[in-house]
Amino acid sequence: MITKQKYVYSFGSGKVAGQGGDKKTLGGKGAGLAEMTGIGLPVPAGFTISVPACEYYWGRDKKWPAGLAEEIRRQLAQLEKTSGKKLGDAKDPLLVSVRSGAARSMPGMMESILNLGMNDRSVEGLAAATGNPRFAWDAYRRFLQMYSTTAVGLSKEILEEKLYHLKERAGVRSDHELSAENLRALCGEFKDFFREQTGRDFPQDPWEQLVGAVNAVFNSWNADKAVTYRRVEKITDLKGTAVNIQQMVFGNMGDDSGTGVCFTRDPSTGENIFYGDMLINAQGEDVVAGIRTPIKLTELGDHMPAIYDQLCAVRAILEIHYGEMQDLEFTFERGKLYMLQCRTGKRTPAAAFRIAVEQATQPLLTKTAARRLFKAGYLPKRYLDAASKPVISRDQAIRRITQEDIERLFYPIISPNIARDELARAKLTEGINAVPGAACGQVVFNAADAEALAAKGEAVILVRKETSPEDVGGMQAAMGILTQTGGKTSHAAVVARGWGKCCIVGCDDLKIDYNAGQMTIRGQVVRANDYLTLDGSSGTVYGGRLELQAPQPPQEYFTLMKWADGRRRLRVHTNADTPEDARKAVEMGAEGIGLCRTEHMFFATRERQLAIQEMIVADTLEARKRALDKLLPYQRDDFIGIFDAMDGRPVTVRLIDPPLHEFLPKSQEQAEELSQATGIPTAAILQRAEQLHEANPMLGHRGCRLCITYPEILEMQVRAIIEAAVAVKKRGGKVSPEIMIPLTIDAKELKLLTDRTRAVADEIIKRSGVKLDYLVGTMIETPRAAITADDIAEVAQFFSFGTNDLTQMTMGLSRDDAGRFLPDYCNPNKAAIFAVDPFTSLDQDGVGMLVLVAIEQARDVNPKLKIGICGEHGGDPESVKFCHLVGMNYVSCSPYRVPIARLAAAQAMIEEDEDEAQRRAAVRAATPKRRTSAGKKKAAPAKKKAPARRARK
Amino acid sequence: MITKQKYVYSFGSGKVAGQGGDKKTLGGKGAGLAEMTGIGLPVPAGFTISVPACEYYWGRDKKWPAGLAEEIRRQLAQLEKTSGKKLGDAKDPLLVSVRSGAARSMPGMMESILNLGMNDRSVEGLAAATGNPRFAWDAYRRFLQMYSTTAVGLSKEILEEKLYHLKERAGVRSDHELSAENLRALCGEFKDFFREQTGRDFPQDPWEQLVGAVNAVFNSWNADKAVTYRRVEKITDLKGTAVNIQQMVFGNMGDDSGTGVCFTRDPSTGENIFYGDMLINAQGEDVVAGIRTPIKLTELGDHMPAIYDQLCAVRAILEIHYGEMQDLEFTFERGKLYMLQCRTGKRTPAAAFRIAVEQATQPLLTKTAARRLFKAGYLPKRYLDAASKPVISRDQAIRRITQEDIERLFYPIISPNIARDELARAKLTEGINAVPGAACGQVVFNAADAEALAAKGEAVILVRKETSPEDVGGMQAAMGILTQTGGKTSHAAVVARGWGKCCIVGCDDLKIDYNAGQMTIRGQVVRANDYLTLDGSSGTVYGGRLELQAPQPPQEYFTLMKWADGRRRLRVHTNADTPEDARKAVEMGAEGIGLCRTEHMFFATRERQLAIQEMIVADTLEARKRALDKLLPYQRDDFIGIFDAMDGRPVTVRLIDPPLHEFLPKSQEQAEELSQATGIPTAAILQRAEQLHEANPMLGHRGCRLCITYPEILEMQVRAIIEAAVAVKKRGGKVSPEIMIPLTIDAKELKLLTDRTRAVADEIIKRSGVKLDYLVGTMIETPRAAITADDIAEVAQFFSFGTNDLTQMTMGLSRDDAGRFLPDYCNPNKAAIFAVDPFTSLDQDGVGMLVLVAIEQARDVNPKLKIGICGEHGGDPESVKFCHLVGMNYVSCSPYRVPIARLAAAQAMIEEDEDEAQRRAAVRAATPKRRTSAGKKKAAPAKKKAPARRARK
Repeated sequence: MITKQKYVYSFGSGKVAGQGGDKKTLGGKGAGLAEMTGIGLPVPAGFTISVPACEYYWGRDKKWPAGLAEEIRRQLAQLEKTSGKKLGDAKDPLLVSVRSGAARSMPGMMESILNLGMNDRSVEGLAAATGNPRFAWDAYRRFLQMYSTTAVGLSKEILEEKLYHLKERAGVRSDHELSAENLRALCGEFKDFFREQTGRDFPQDPWEQLVGAVNAVFNSWNADKAVTYRRVEKITDLKGTAVNIQQMVFGNMGDDSGTGVCFTRDPSTGENIFYGDMLINAQGEDVVAGIRTPIKLTELGDHMPAIYDQLCAVRAILEIHYGEMQDLEFTFERGKLYMLQCRTGKRTPAAAFRIAVEQATQPLLTKTAARRLFKAGYLPKRYLDAASKPVISRDQAIRRITQEDIERLFYPIISPNIARDELARAKLTEGINAVPGAACGQVVFNAADAEALAAKGEAVILVRKETSPEDVGGMQAAMGILTQTGGKTSHAAVVARGWGKCCIVGCDDLKIDYNAGQMTIRGQVVRANDYLTLDGSSGTVYGGRLELQAPQPPQEYFTLMKWADGRRRLRVHTNADTPEDARKAVEMGAEGIGLCRTEHMFFATRERQLAIQEMIVADTLEARKRALDKLLPYQRDDFIGIFDAMDGRPVTVRLIDPPLHEFLPKSQEQAEELSQATGIPTAAILQRAEQLHEANPMLGHRGCRLCITYPEILEMQVRAIIEAAVAVKKRGGKVSPEIMIPLTIDAKELKLLTDRTRAVADEIIKRSGVKLDYLVGTMIETPRAAITADDIAEVAQFFSFGTNDLTQMTMGLSRDDAGRFLPDYCNPNKAAIFAVDPFTSLDQDGVGMLVLVAIEQARDVNPKLKIGICGEHGGDPESVKFCHLVGMNYVSCSPYRVPIARLAAAQAMIEEDEDEAQRRAAVRAATPKRRTSAGKKKAAPAKKKAPARRARK
Repeated sequence: MITKQKYVYSFGSGKVAGQGGDKKTLGGKGAGLAEMTGIGLPVPAGFTISVPACEYYWGRDKKWPAGLAEEIRRQLAQLEKTSGKKLGDAKDPLLVSVRSGAARSMPGMMESILNLGMNDRSVEGLAAATGNPRFAWDAYRRFLQMYSTTAVGLSKEILEEKLYHLKERAGVRSDHELSAENLRALCGEFKDFFREQTGRDFPQDPWEQLVGAVNAVFNSWNADKAVTYRRVEKITDLKGTAVNIQQMVFGNMGDDSGTGVCFTRDPSTGENIFYGDMLINAQGEDVVAGIRTPIKLTELGDHMPAIYDQLCAVRAILEIHYGEMQDLEFTFERGKLYMLQCRTGKRTPAAAFRIAVEQATQPLLTKTAARRLFKAGYLPKRYLDAASKPVISRDQAIRRITQEDIERLFYPIISPNIARDELARAKLTEGINAVPGAACGQVVFNAADAEALAAKGEAVILVRKETSPEDVGGMQAAMGILTQTGGKTSHAAVVARGWGKCCIVGCDDLKIDYNAGQMTIRGQVVRANDYLTLDGSSGTVYGGRLELQAPQPPQEYFTLMKWADGRRRLRVHTNADTPEDARKAVEMGAEGIGLCRTEHMFFATRERQLAIQEMIVADTLEARKRALDKLLPYQRDDFIGIFDAMDGRPVTVRLIDPPLHEFLPKSQEQAEELSQATGIPTAAILQRAEQLHEANPMLGHRGCRLCITYPEILEMQVRAIIEAAVAVKKRGGKVSPEIMIPLTIDAKELKLLTDRTRAVADEIIKRSGVKLDYLVGTMIETPRAAITADDIAEVAQFFSFGTNDLTQMTMGLSRDDAGRFLPDYCNPNKAAIFAVDPFTSLDQDGVGMLVLVAIEQARDVNPKLKIGICGEHGGDPESVKFCHLVGMNYVSCSPYRVPIARLAAAQAMIEEDEDEAQRRAAVRAATPKRRTSAGKKKAAPAKKKAPARRARK
């Protein structure tokens, strides 16, 4: 026997036939209505046509599934029976709304039709039944208008125009003032227009109306604007929309009627107040349309205390039920309250923290308030106790905070006070939103100008085709960075992210003319010193100066992060190259430095830059050593500053990594300057630069390969690190240096360099007479290092997975070039090969497998090996959770992502505990009762969870 | 109890105390002497001081191990007892030679001292005992000279000068003519000189002499020339030299004495004759010094038939014993034969094949000859039968041939008739020996000139800084290719290797001035149209025209390759892009095309090049399709030609792989030409080229990523392949096309492209009405593809491992750039991280592990998946053996390496069988006798050997 699929689910009137909360079947709105019905809240009766029906419709050339019409007719009959009214009835007609509702909110993207069931007969019935002809004709007018445009596709503008002309003729300003007669005439005009346009009369049969309305909602799922919205928002998991058909209730039936929207807490501040706006004697669309100024919800308490108390009880019930702050819609008709919608409420980042912390620590209502609502009969007994206790646990609070909540907490934003159209006018173009936050300043086109202008105290936006390490000074000085090329992990993006500095990259529209000191953006010329405002969160570039708002984390942020720190197993380090970065990171909660890149230090001043360049162009060992001797004191001083800032926390210093040509002069002028400083002919310098040019620098002469070729570089750097550590120790400071060798591909290679490192370090320590412990480890960033991790683990004291490079090599993707095709790969509407950009979130199936195998192999031979990750993925929550699952000791990320990593690490631990609890419960359930006590003892100890949920065999 | 280590092993006089043949302990010479003693050949008695003694000496600051002196004294006493003579004896003194002998021959690199034991007393004793004072004083003179220079370090030149002056004074021309008196005087002069220089008398104590001589040999191990030799020859497995102390025998004791060197077969032709040179009444060094003209060995048969027959028997005994052609040294003293050395003889490639085949098919001696030698008492009975049977099995013959034997068989060489000093004068510089063989022709500096000059019938050498795909025509036209940059797997090297065309790359000394049409090499100017000769085998560049010799494989080559083909499991395909290559490859034994690169076809003519360029600069889909339509017929015709040439053998066609910018004009002129042809402005063309520029093209927009972005390219190529196949089938031909998608990183990506491929192909086949089978598969060349091979195996019909790129990505090594540091990594005397260049021989520990894991995973889900390898490693014997062990179905390599792969595949099979036989023998040995028959049945079936010998857990 084939079980026929059910497509329609009823709700309301205290009965529910849907799976409460199943958004996948019922959509968000339908699920909320079913859920509210289930917990006894007053919901107007109705039914939901499921998402699978819509999916069928689109899969079968706009046909309804067999039996759907029959199901709807049956549900409609039931609704008529429940309400005691009939659709299209000449006396007291039933009116229904027909609304869309996908599993996720797509605000304004899809259609609704209200007052369905109105026709030439029922309008009279409604007028009679309500004793309000104006109301009845207004309802008919609204239905005619909505149905004609939405279900039939007639021109919205023409109908609006007819309404406008009517008001002109009647000499009134607002719809409200139109009389029943006016509206009846307008209905006539609308029907005439319908006939003119379609060649038939406006459908009077309510069933025909209903079928048309359901199809209109189905069709709106694939309307251009909805498709575009889903593409832009990268929504791919939705299959269609549900259709909710519900008895109409009216907030515009007099002063004992009204409608409103509210939040169970203040969505801006998170404060524990009942927050909302409402209108007396109005319909929902009037609130949204802003035709009348709404009043504060609390004023309802004065006006209609019973309704207000009822609502307060609903607020408590729903927040307790969902354990989350809710966004509600309600209407009361002639003194009777109806709930029309509930969903999780959006909130500001600050509110997110305050709500989570207060939900976990304080009751929603005082005992007195709760008791009063109970006594009034509004709060059922089963909610009484709960209403005066915290709504959620601390773990739930921790899990509730998202990456975006933290990001948006710290980055400046464009003032929300700026009007939307002003923003639209100022917008010049869009690029890739590499680092969120906003910035505003004067445009400069090179790093030197950025530094000069910033030194005068001006805010600067640095605009470049692309950035390179020598731009770092100017990037540091700028408030925001804008580049024509590159992706989210290009040089500009990575460096800027490290500083939490607003950055937009890959902005193709820029046509930069460095010589002229200007650029054009979509034809508009922007000159040096003109103002630009960047919104790094969206990637939008605005002309001129827009007001910004500075971040200020609330107290609850610190409370919640403390909870998170208490929950996590994974430690969180930071990537920091300067004492300032280090201090900032400690402030953000970093427990060490996981990646200190020494090469950025070479660009800090002109002298250093010249010294490193001199080292590279040197053609004898002696000349190279002379240049390195100049660099040594700079590096040593930098390390002293960093060690001081970290105060004994581990500091992992990576030896020189980039290919040497990155440090060399690019232009004739720069070469001449270097020539003057070093006495080496300009031609020789340019020749050396040319000679160092590589076809694929990413796979070239870089990382520890440089130290194989030039051991003297390693020696200088180790000397600087260890001498700095010794100096700090000598004056009583604490220091834990870890020397990290990059780009290892073989254990022998690492052994050779580790031996050299120890030879230099031990000699210095011995001479100093100070006791100093230090570690020597390596990055695992080539696939070969991961594959041979067991051999390498015999040499290394720690591993740090460099997943940026590991991703590049494992996937054969240059992050500087992937912008040409990777977006298509990640676009769910194009090739849809990857769900997320593998440079943003670790590719767990591919790169992650290498990481997993490497860790297992390495721990086999060296169980105590310290293992971490550095690079972009260390600040991505999903990747952090992966790191937790595969058993790393720490993650390292840029200072501004440290809180995100701390939170994700705690969430990972909580998820692990929950999985474990479920497992135990399953074991308990499967244990026969009589053997329980014995069974308990025999049960195997809780086994560590399989490392990665998505891990493969 | 500690067992004292033994350092000295005796040999000779029919007794042997050494482990016969243990070269590691005894060195090559010592092992041969012990071995010959063991099988009863006449070897002058003596003993060998082992290699570990030398190792100890160098490890402990030039100290002898405890007990060594004692051991030597004991052995010396034994030697004196055996010979009945005493060192330094005044009557009939014992004389010994002290010779070095490492495990591998290092010709001329280390020292020997002869006639040790001579002193003022024993010289008289020797004169008396031999009745030949001249001989005695000459022996003393020689010893004084050798000992003074070798053991004490006095000037060779001054001593030679004294000898020269003596001859002047005596009025004679050669040493031979000096009288006993002359020589006695010279000995006095030598001793005086010794005293002057050292302040002490020449040591008269034979023990002191012996210690000095042993130390001299030890010291010569680390003399500059020996160290340099080992560095140049990349010898790293040797720990030191042995020292052989042996009773002197003299070939210069009259006409019944003599000395010679011989080979058991002709080392030039491989002919089964006894081949050698000798001198009557001379010492070994006289043969080497070339003072007198030697006579042919066969003449000895006339002069001294007994000695000759004895030698003939020795020849048979040693070749049978070793199963290999031997290189021998002998001396006969007063009618008694002594063997002084035996080792495996070097031979020409043609001889290598003839020897191997004849050893496996024919007896060394006729039955008559063997019986004659037996009857004469020279050939022991146990060798009688063996001497008239083949010496080795066919399997042994197959295993004996090396990659170099085959390579050298096919490449032209510089004529061996050219005198060494002429060569030295012609030599300009050296580069990296990318493709062996020699070439001679006129220099041109660009591809167009190469084609033009070659069209006139001239031989051309193409010289470029580096080559790119657009040079391919010129490269094809040239006899040899010389580039300034690049390594063994650079574009020039890979393309040239495909054609077996002489190529030298990475020749830093070239300073090319394209504009002037000339270059300088170490200061010497070479102009266009000057002649150069390249020796690609050594990487040497010669000025001028040197005579070349063409290759001509002997019949035995074909015989042996047939045997190999009968033995192998692995199939051998080829990489070929044109019908000519395909035909050549079939001639070389290819069983299919494993890699047909379609992009080279785009450069075959100017029209094609313009069409592909037009396609790339097109800015609309229509324009792109128009350009592709032009390419379609060209590609289709190419495929028809290739299918015809392969006559039904599988042809694997790879879809477009390189990044598009490789096809675009590089210069203003080329852009202008394209502009004229297409009507697209030059500036737009150059801008497009600029826009396509990539930071790391290896990891950029290439491979199947191009077909994701531009599906129309895939469609055109699939159309060309399938239409060609259909055309061939229609006229009754056979064809097995396989379409290969490159650079896959994910199963979804491959699925998408496979579906597109099949859609196009099936439509064409359906329309044609022809039945055509084809496969769609992928290259596994990114680490991610290897890691996710199980998913990919569900989509692909075959895998081809692209180990060039897989090596680049797994190791993070750009083959175009690695020339800067990889040589240090592979140099045993520098970083010594890799034993071989991973681009030459597959890195089995790293890349090989990915291959192994991928195959295991893939076969789990798709046991019948066809798996092969294409790329440079497919022609490297060690890599081919790896491919066999991991269970691949085929390897594919360039046409000229096909025989090498066929041979290696057979060798791999033979090795596997031998391992299996050993395993069975071990099982049998471990099975108790009474259970033998039952045990046999129960024994588990022979399990497949663990895939890779070097594979890791």
